[in-house]
Amino acid sequence: MIHGNVMVGQSGGPTSVINASLVGVFKTAQDEGCKTVYGMRNGIEGLLEERYIDISDYIKNDLDIELLKRTPSSFLGTCRFKLPHADKAPELYDRIFSILNGLGVKYFFYIGGNDSMDTIMQLSEYARKIGSDIRFMGVPKTIDNDLACTDHTPGFGSASKYIASTMKEIIRDAKTYPNDSITIVEIMGRNAGWLTASSALSRSEDCDGPDLIYLPEVVFDHEKFLEQIKEKKKTHKAVIVAVSEGIKTADGKYVCEANKNTTLVDSFGHKALGGTALYLSDFLTDKLGIKCRGIVLATLQRCASHLVSRRDITEAFMAGADAVMAALRGETGKMIIFKRISNNPYSIVTDIMDIREVANKEKCVPLEWITEDGTYVSEEFDTYARPLIIGELSPFMVDGLPRHLFIDR
Amino acid sequence: MIHGNVMVGQSGGPTSVINASLVGVFKTAQDEGCKTVYGMRNGIEGLLEERYIDISDYIKNDLDIELLKRTPSSFLGTCRFKLPHADKAPELYDRIFSILNGLGVKYFFYIGGNDSMDTIMQLSEYARKIGSDIRFMGVPKTIDNDLACTDHTPGFGSASKYIASTMKEIIRDAKTYPNDSITIVEIMGRNAGWLTASSALSRSEDCDGPDLIYLPEVVFDHEKFLEQIKEKKKTHKAVIVAVSEGIKTADGKYVCEANKNTTLVDSFGHKALGGTALYLSDFLTDKLGIKCRGIVLATLQRCASHLVSRRDITEAFMAGADAVMAALRGETGKMIIFKRISNNPYSIVTDIMDIREVANKEKCVPLEWITEDGTYVSEEFDTYARPLIIGELSPFMVDGLPRHLFIDR
Repeated sequence: MIHGNVMVGQSGGPTSVINASLVGVFKTAQDEGCKTVYGMRNGIEGLLEERYIDISDYIKNDLDIELLKRTPSSFLGTCRFKLPHADKAPELYDRIFSILNGLGVKYFFYIGGNDSMDTIMQLSEYARKIGSDIRFMGVPKTIDNDLACTDHTPGFGSASKYIASTMKEIIRDAKTYPNDSITIVEIMGRNAGWLTASSALSRSEDCDGPDLIYLPEVVFDHEKFLEQIKEKKKTHKAVIVAVSEGIKTADGKYVCEANKNTTLVDSFGHKALGGTALYLSDFLTDKLGIKCRGIVLATLQRCASHLVSRRDITEAFMAGADAVMAALRGETGKMIIFKRISNNPYSIVTDIMDIREVANKEKCVPLEWITEDGTYVSEEFDTYARPLIIGELSPFMVDGLPRHLFIDR
Repeated sequence: MIHGNVMVGQSGGPTSVINASLVGVFKTAQDEGCKTVYGMRNGIEGLLEERYIDISDYIKNDLDIELLKRTPSSFLGTCRFKLPHADKAPELYDRIFSILNGLGVKYFFYIGGNDSMDTIMQLSEYARKIGSDIRFMGVPKTIDNDLACTDHTPGFGSASKYIASTMKEIIRDAKTYPNDSITIVEIMGRNAGWLTASSALSRSEDCDGPDLIYLPEVVFDHEKFLEQIKEKKKTHKAVIVAVSEGIKTADGKYVCEANKNTTLVDSFGHKALGGTALYLSDFLTDKLGIKCRGIVLATLQRCASHLVSRRDITEAFMAGADAVMAALRGETGKMIIFKRISNNPYSIVTDIMDIREVANKEKCVPLEWITEDGTYVSEEFDTYARPLIIGELSPFMVDGLPRHLFIDR
């Protein structure tokens, strides 16, 4: 039984299932007797401006709940706001706690990735320091699957399913022509190659999958790349290559930086990536004189809710729900994690992890899961990732288009 | 009742429903008693090399038929081969007719766009000249919807549905951030803006649609563009723009040519396009200093069979089936066309059209369907296009991925 109100927010890049976690928090809090579940607009950034809603004004019935599960992007709005340390900006912390206290909030949930878990860490430590009884819990979310301590993250399975499905379609398209061609598909992932590795899941009875896969975990070498392409060309008219947007050369520079004059940096100090496929496509056209095409899967990897993994949706809901239950048991400064019990049949349980073990860390694809020549992933990756893309959740189609729940259109 | 065998081929860029037309030809020919339905591998180019299959070796039952309807890209393989005029290459015509005669083929079906209809025109005229009784029929296909004489083309509805659906997802993704941003979505269409116009179908109860739409039918002016963006920015934090890859400036040059050193040309003399979104995104970043993102929907527009329009699938099948029935009635040198009987309820019938009226012509979006300032499409377009995206055909999902029927993997 909840005593006090709930505040929940979404932060960082969206996923196709981030709203399933929101529903998990909302519904569980309601079921446990919470009077008001507030939602921050645009995460902590909006909260600081006192922009929040009473979620029950928008989710009125079970149909709304099902619709929200099928709605991509962050329903509440998101932000990329880096909360400074309390020593450096005590006024921000005063402000947040005064707003939360004013609303009778006793439970605070933040659905996000590494950077957002830093926010939870800071807030829970500050609460301890000032003796506040508000509990702060992190709900994992990221298509990148790069959070530490958890078997995988909600959002990854659906992004993987989208990547593998569209990769199958792209491969069929590329192979239908009789001409020589090279198709380079650029996939998200700054330092962790989980999503690019997922392109290998397209390998199935009716599809050979991409011919080469380049992850950011392996140093990219232009000469080796050229040789590997030439080798594939000997037996394949159409060569299909999956590359991570974050592949780097030995000097630590992103490959995509080569054709950029300026480099944008976001509020977390991350460089803006993009252009890897185009650059490599130009590089190969120049070297080989073969038709090369660059395809960038872009934001659809994180917002194609018309093609989600049902397992991912279920687990995302569970992560939100179990965060509420853990907070009710008195936990704070923790994040929900998944532990895998078995692969076959697939089974996981949730647990909680001290947020300090999670925040600001990055989990990459283990090098043992990458083939020796660095151009593919191993069976171990397949065993790990394939269960995560299983099952569908049909969109609610209205007049031929997927319907979404919205605050602002 | 068919006397003689059938030869069918697929040509040009694939669509998500080109195989439904193939099924329509195959099944109808079989039902009419045809002994062998041959399929050219890679269209006329493969036929000249005597590469063909007996389709019944691959489609063995009704499950295969349903699977093929859900398989993207051209099942038989495609080509971009331009058949020269008979005066210039009589040996090619001799060859084709000798192969067809050797196989006892009396009916020839070619599923394709403007360029492919030129092939049908040439072959049927040559047949008339040499007194051959082989009948040549065109089955329309193109996502571009630019074929003359027909209300619309099979393939357009599914591409529109994909564009409008993903546009909704992209818009939700773009609007979830509190920051100023401009998102430019590049959509296929060389000279005809039908597909780009379809982005407007994303406008629905839960989505405002893109803010600006630029079609190749309207001369693109950089200064006006900048002003129109600035105007939208006054009221919209996130501005979403749909642009055709084929927009051109007043001097007739493609906008995307501005940032290219070389210009590739295909066998039909068409310039390779691409890079419009990236170019405009750089242009706006430079002029406005706002975060701009370019998204290219790329080949998925023509191969995302996981999200087809059921109406499009049905009509594509019908186009193939009715081509067979017309050939049986004695027609040759014709293409199947659609005539719209009514919008509400939506109803069409098929008819046949002399191929000379169709070949090598291009149908653009009527200027009356484009708003006066050239930045959106009118209600008329909506009334025309919305019925075409209605209905779904669920993919056959196996282990979390859409299953396809294949000859080569």
